[in-house]
Amino acid sequence: MNEPKIRMRLQCPMPQLKFDVITLGHGGGGLLTRQLLESGVFDLLKNDLLDTHHDGALLPLSGPLAFTTDSYVVSPMFFPGADIGDLAVNGTVNDLAMCGAIPKYLSLAFILEEGLDMKTFWEVLVSIKSAAAQAGVHIVTGDTKVVERGKGDGIFINTSGIGVIHPKAAIDIKRIAEGDVVVISGPLAAHGMAIMSVREGLTFESPIESDSAPLAQTVLSLIETFGDQIKLLRDPTRGGLATVLNEVAIDTGKGIDLLQKDIPVTDDVASACELMGLDPLYVANEGVFMAVVAPEIADAFVAQLRQLPYGSQCARVGEITAEHPRQVVLKSRIGGRRVVNMLVGEQLPSIC
Amino acid sequence: MNEPKIRMRLQCPMPQLKFDVITLGHGGGGLLTRQLLESGVFDLLKNDLLDTHHDGALLPLSGPLAFTTDSYVVSPMFFPGADIGDLAVNGTVNDLAMCGAIPKYLSLAFILEEGLDMKTFWEVLVSIKSAAAQAGVHIVTGDTKVVERGKGDGIFINTSGIGVIHPKAAIDIKRIAEGDVVVISGPLAAHGMAIMSVREGLTFESPIESDSAPLAQTVLSLIETFGDQIKLLRDPTRGGLATVLNEVAIDTGKGIDLLQKDIPVTDDVASACELMGLDPLYVANEGVFMAVVAPEIADAFVAQLRQLPYGSQCARVGEITAEHPRQVVLKSRIGGRRVVNMLVGEQLPSIC
Repeated sequence: MNEPKIRMRLQCPMPQLKFDVITLGHGGGGLLTRQLLESGVFDLLKNDLLDTHHDGALLPLSGPLAFTTDSYVVSPMFFPGADIGDLAVNGTVNDLAMCGAIPKYLSLAFILEEGLDMKTFWEVLVSIKSAAAQAGVHIVTGDTKVVERGKGDGIFINTSGIGVIHPKAAIDIKRIAEGDVVVISGPLAAHGMAIMSVREGLTFESPIESDSAPLAQTVLSLIETFGDQIKLLRDPTRGGLATVLNEVAIDTGKGIDLLQKDIPVTDDVASACELMGLDPLYVANEGVFMAVVAPEIADAFVAQLRQLPYGSQCARVGEITAEHPRQVVLKSRIGGRRVVNMLVGEQLPSIC
Repeated sequence: MNEPKIRMRLQCPMPQLKFDVITLGHGGGGLLTRQLLESGVFDLLKNDLLDTHHDGALLPLSGPLAFTTDSYVVSPMFFPGADIGDLAVNGTVNDLAMCGAIPKYLSLAFILEEGLDMKTFWEVLVSIKSAAAQAGVHIVTGDTKVVERGKGDGIFINTSGIGVIHPKAAIDIKRIAEGDVVVISGPLAAHGMAIMSVREGLTFESPIESDSAPLAQTVLSLIETFGDQIKLLRDPTRGGLATVLNEVAIDTGKGIDLLQKDIPVTDDVASACELMGLDPLYVANEGVFMAVVAPEIADAFVAQLRQLPYGSQCARVGEITAEHPRQVVLKSRIGGRRVVNMLVGEQLPSIC
C-alpha cells in the first residue's frame, strides 16, 4: 500500500581528515575553523553562490519573495527513511512551498556538540547535499558553532529559506470560505512513528519509515493548474493534522468537518499508533501537506495530485462549515462525532 | 577615552503569564505552543510582515540581495554592554553590512532549554526588539524549539538576514591591490574581554563593556561616499582581527603590514588582556569593522568615519604589500617585526 519513497542518496566518500571528532576549536574562528572549512568536508556543498570566505551570499533575485526559518533538533539524528540532514532541507523547502513559493536558496547553520564524531557529521552533510539536489535548492551561506559537551545534543541545524512566490499563487487563510474542501496529500503520522519506534526500540516486520520528502515540485504543479482556487497550504509537522486544522478553525472563525474513514493512514503506522496509544491525527508528518481548495476544483485537484510525486494516496478528508465555528469535528467510522482538540503539551519531544 | 556607547533599551513590562518556565510542551506545536505564541510574549516583536500563524513571510523585495546566517550560543547570556539578544540582531545586521547591503529583514529561531525562566526569555526578547528597532530591520519569520534539560544551554538563537545590495557597493576581495590601506573602525577586543571578565569573575573600576553595535548605518554612509574605492569590509568577530587579516592575506595571496602603535585598544581592555595573557588581535569584536580601501581615499575615509557612529576612534592600521605574500607582519612599538599567525584552536569558547 505504501508509495515507494524516492530518496536520492549520493555516494560521497569522506575526505581524509587530520581529526576524528569536532573540538571547541573548530568553532573558534581561527586556524582549526579554517582547517574544517578547507578539509574538503564543506566542499561537498560547493556551488557558485556559496562563498565560504565571506559572511554572506549575493543573490540575483527579484520579489515578491517568501522567507522562512526552522531549527531541527530531532533525536535520534538517524532514523528509518531519513535523518536530521534531509529533514533540515525538506522541512524548510516545504515551508516555502506552503507559502506558494518556488524554493531557491537555503542558509545552513550548525550548532555542534564538542566530541561529535566527524563520520556522523559527514553523513549528515551528505544527506543535506542529496536533499538539496533533489529539491533543486542552493545552499548559499552557512555558519558553524561548537558548544561544550553537555550543552548541545550532537547536531542542531537551522536552515532559513528564500523562495520566489509563484505568480499564480494566492495562498491566504482569509480567502477560505464555507464549502471549501480539505485535502491531504498522503497517509499521516509516518514521520512521528518512525522516530517513536526507534526511541522505544519497537520492531515491526518492515520498519516504519519517515515520510520526509520535498513537496515543492508537487505543490507548484498544482498551483500552476489551479491558481487562486487553492486557498491554503500547510504541512502538518509538530502537533500533526489536528493542530493545523485547529489553527485554521480558530484563525478563520469557521468550523471543520472531518471524515475519519477518508483519512489515509497506512496499516503499519495505524498498528504502531494503537500499540503506543497515540492518535495519528496528532503525530508529526514531514512529507505530507494539507490543502484547502474551492469545492469546484476539489475532484480535479485530487485527480492531479494522485499523479504527482508523494500524492498517490491523497484524499479529500473534510470540509469547511458554518456549523460549530472554531471547532474541528470528526465523524468516526462507526458514526459518532467528537471534537478534535488541539494537542496539549508535547507528545513527542525533539521530533523534528 | 571610550566613545559612549549608544544602546537603546526599550522599557517593556512582561505580560501576565500562566507559566513561569519553558517546558517541552511549548515546543510541541500544540496548544502550549499556541499559548506561548499568543501569551503576548511574541507580540513584542509584532510588525506588519511578521506572520505568527504561517510558516513564512512574504517580502516585497527586489535584488540583488545579500543573505546571511549566524547562530549565537554566547555564555553567559547577559554581560556588560549587551546580551545574546542584541548580539543576535547586531551580528547578522553587521554581516549584511559587510556585504555592502542595506539590512532589511531577519528571521529569528530559538532553541530553548527546558526549564528556562520566562523572565530571562522576556529580557532577551526585549533586547532583540530594541536592537532591531535601532538597526532598522524587521523580524518577519520565526521558530521556537524546546530541547530537554541538559541538551541545550538556556537559549541558542539563529538569525538569518536579507539585505539589498547598495547600488554603489563593490565589495570584492579580488579587487584588493598592493598599496591598499587597512582601516579599523574602533578599538579592539572589547566584546571578548567583557565576556571573559564575567566568566573569570574579574572586576575592574568600571566594567569592560561589549562593543556590540549595529554598524550598517555607518558602513552605508561610507559606501555612499566612496563607492567602489572600498574593496573589502569584514567584521572581526571570532578569532579577532588577526584571523580576518590572515584570511585576507591567504585569499589574496598578498602580504599585510600592520603597525602596532596605530591599532586602537582602550587602556582597560589592554590591561585586562595583559592580565589574562591574551593578545587583543585575537579577541572577538562585535561592534568593529575592518575596511580595505584604495590609498587615494584613505585619509578622507578615516576623516568621515571619525564623524560617524561607532567610528570616533577609527584608525589606519596597515597596508597591503607585495612583500611576504600570504603573511601578516606586525611592526611592534619597539621596532621589532613578527608574523601574526592565525589563531589555533579556541581562545574563548561560546563567545558569540
